[in-house]
Amino acid sequence: MTKPRVVIIGGGFAGLTAARGLRKADVEVTLIDRTNHHLFQPLLYQVATAVLAPSDITSPIRWLLRKNTNTTVLLAEVDAIDPEKQVVHADKGTLTLPYDYLVIASGARHAYFGHDEWEPMAPGLKSLEDALKVRHRFLIAFEEAEKAAPEERDSWLRFVIVGGGPTGVELAGILPDIAHHSMLDDFRNFDPRDTKILLLEGGPRLLTAFEPDLAARALKDLQGLGVDVHLNAIVTRVEKDAVYVGDQRIPTRTVLWAAGNQASPLARTLDAPLDRAGRVLVAPDLSVPGHPHIFVTGDLAAINQENGELVPGVAPAANQMGKLAAKNIKRMLAELPTLKFEYHDKGNLATIGRYRAIAEIGPLKLRGQIAWWFWLFIHLMYLATFRNRVSVLIEWAYSYLTYQRGSRLITEREGDGVSSAGENKMGSIG
Amino acid sequence: MTKPRVVIIGGGFAGLTAARGLRKADVEVTLIDRTNHHLFQPLLYQVATAVLAPSDITSPIRWLLRKNTNTTVLLAEVDAIDPEKQVVHADKGTLTLPYDYLVIASGARHAYFGHDEWEPMAPGLKSLEDALKVRHRFLIAFEEAEKAAPEERDSWLRFVIVGGGPTGVELAGILPDIAHHSMLDDFRNFDPRDTKILLLEGGPRLLTAFEPDLAARALKDLQGLGVDVHLNAIVTRVEKDAVYVGDQRIPTRTVLWAAGNQASPLARTLDAPLDRAGRVLVAPDLSVPGHPHIFVTGDLAAINQENGELVPGVAPAANQMGKLAAKNIKRMLAELPTLKFEYHDKGNLATIGRYRAIAEIGPLKLRGQIAWWFWLFIHLMYLATFRNRVSVLIEWAYSYLTYQRGSRLITEREGDGVSSAGENKMGSIG
Repeated sequence: MTKPRVVIIGGGFAGLTAARGLRKADVEVTLIDRTNHHLFQPLLYQVATAVLAPSDITSPIRWLLRKNTNTTVLLAEVDAIDPEKQVVHADKGTLTLPYDYLVIASGARHAYFGHDEWEPMAPGLKSLEDALKVRHRFLIAFEEAEKAAPEERDSWLRFVIVGGGPTGVELAGILPDIAHHSMLDDFRNFDPRDTKILLLEGGPRLLTAFEPDLAARALKDLQGLGVDVHLNAIVTRVEKDAVYVGDQRIPTRTVLWAAGNQASPLARTLDAPLDRAGRVLVAPDLSVPGHPHIFVTGDLAAINQENGELVPGVAPAANQMGKLAAKNIKRMLAELPTLKFEYHDKGNLATIGRYRAIAEIGPLKLRGQIAWWFWLFIHLMYLATFRNRVSVLIEWAYSYLTYQRGSRLITEREGDGVSSAGENKMGSIG
Repeated sequence: MTKPRVVIIGGGFAGLTAARGLRKADVEVTLIDRTNHHLFQPLLYQVATAVLAPSDITSPIRWLLRKNTNTTVLLAEVDAIDPEKQVVHADKGTLTLPYDYLVIASGARHAYFGHDEWEPMAPGLKSLEDALKVRHRFLIAFEEAEKAAPEERDSWLRFVIVGGGPTGVELAGILPDIAHHSMLDDFRNFDPRDTKILLLEGGPRLLTAFEPDLAARALKDLQGLGVDVHLNAIVTRVEKDAVYVGDQRIPTRTVLWAAGNQASPLARTLDAPLDRAGRVLVAPDLSVPGHPHIFVTGDLAAINQENGELVPGVAPAANQMGKLAAKNIKRMLAELPTLKFEYHDKGNLATIGRYRAIAEIGPLKLRGQIAWWFWLFIHLMYLATFRNRVSVLIEWAYSYLTYQRGSRLITEREGDGVSSAGENKMGSIG
């Protein structure tokens, strides 16, 4: 008798946790991902700003699951799901995987609110490739400023970040450090302290996931670092050398996108109910309504907390969902009823530059340096499951103590660093 | 009065040493490189095999020269040199740099002996981009083997290295480690120990720069590691899924090129005498005959040792040339006669896998484990000028102690990993 086949799509937090949850189950698991690595996404902005190297925050998925002897890891790109035939199609039809149970954990991409044509000019920050693109953009801007005619230099030295959520705030907070400290001795034709950082938020406040007073503190901290924060600033246009807020033209060669999420397009190949962001409106047990053998987890799942708010797209939520999906599959195999998902809020954390952060853990609110130490501790604990903890700590220590970036690496040049065609083909790397 | 302008092309060993030699000279130096980083090339094969991360063996050139207050570093691609007008053209004509003295240190690329069409199928190993391409190829092969039908699996698990010089030998020596140890638990559909490594050398022996008895030892060590070494094996054809030696077809999806050098094409834009490999036949003081203000250094320079043999293309030779070029410029400014180049041979070193090496230092010959420790010591000493020494040591220690690769990172997928068009566009990264 063949064992039940479980296919997991995605090797992020949700997919990895689901696979681990099935480690001792009497099933055959196949985990598919389009990359070979699991990514510690909460530190992605540090790779984007050349503080950490890519290998510091990634581990090969098959290495992380080497003890899961019932699990095969495949590097493949899923094309579509056929819930009727119970198969997953991948690699442009060359690979077909039948399943008895399916866990979809393919995550989200950034959204451009109907302006996908902005993407080449304003890269977002979801995958490692994204981070390397942002880093390339960021480092090239200083190189171009060194070569540019004086009248063009300003736009190379103006960095605009769109979106005042955690990613935007963390990016905006770390850039002044680099511009105002790390690169001080490196250029001859301009002073890196002339670098301007703008953060544009469409709504009336930053960090809506936090309490207003903590968000206000983050705003103050950012302003203290020299970041120019514009609230209620809706981007209407992105060009090669400018961004528009309403009718106002802001000359810049570097726009970084940290606004809005769009669920993985895979959800659309299911006949499942979706919300506006393309997430699957899952049943309380995380299954797809009408398809009890398909579970959706992580950023792709839309499910409410007890207080009526959506479960946020954060790593702890993804882990909890992955764990429950595995548990429910085991329960179904044992012919037990599935369990409902209950979100345990671990709190909210965001850093603002070096040594400052804000944190909400239940009733506890932290800010300033103590919140930063808490943030560091939490992230090192999480990274403990990786092999990278020691080297990450060394990189950080080095970076914070010396104000030097460890990974300021540009590879593969493209024409002027901004053409959209060039950007799409490029593999800016590190 | 304006200061004399020195332009240096290339930020490798020769160019960097030349810039450092001019640090206290009353000149204006501009160093141009097409990347932003100096590369510790002797360890490039370790990045290609995922032992080290790219940032372990690179440092930003402008950071290395931050104390050179007379030096401007530009990220730009040189198009041509105009020795009559004394200018360097760069970035497709958008940048023109006048010079009073010019140091050309743009290095060499690998050569395909008139078969440039082989390059997409058989990447070489000179730049960091090359190393990342090789690494991508190497890691993808195992991923494809996991997905492949059994009859196709063998060709994914056969790695062919062309060229039995130091690069080929070091690559061939490190691959069995990874295949036979690091990946043991990672795959479900094949045994990584079935990986075959072939080393093809066109001549009658390996490592012609070494004494025959040491080269014979290296051959024996490689065979002991399970590498299948073919001497007098001339490659006549490279295809997507095979390499030909004479008429014999060897099925393989991964060919790595470590045979032959071709000097940077920049030399051809000078009206200077070149040797067959495109190197400039420089005068004894490293200047270009007829152009006393232009010096050529590093792998691009062809100059004989006292024994009549060519100065080899190794890091110590490049450093010595860069130093003399700087010195000769300073002497010309002081209206003193230039000095002749004298090569001080520091010896030859090559590793064969883990814990084995061969070394020639003057009359001293080392082999086996003691040579490996010597190799490790020398390389750490060289890396001391970098910031990376500690982290490199940690990576190595980790890698050697656990048999685990630290940087097994694949980013950006391409269709099947072997199409030539895909390969050229790709930015396989890490």
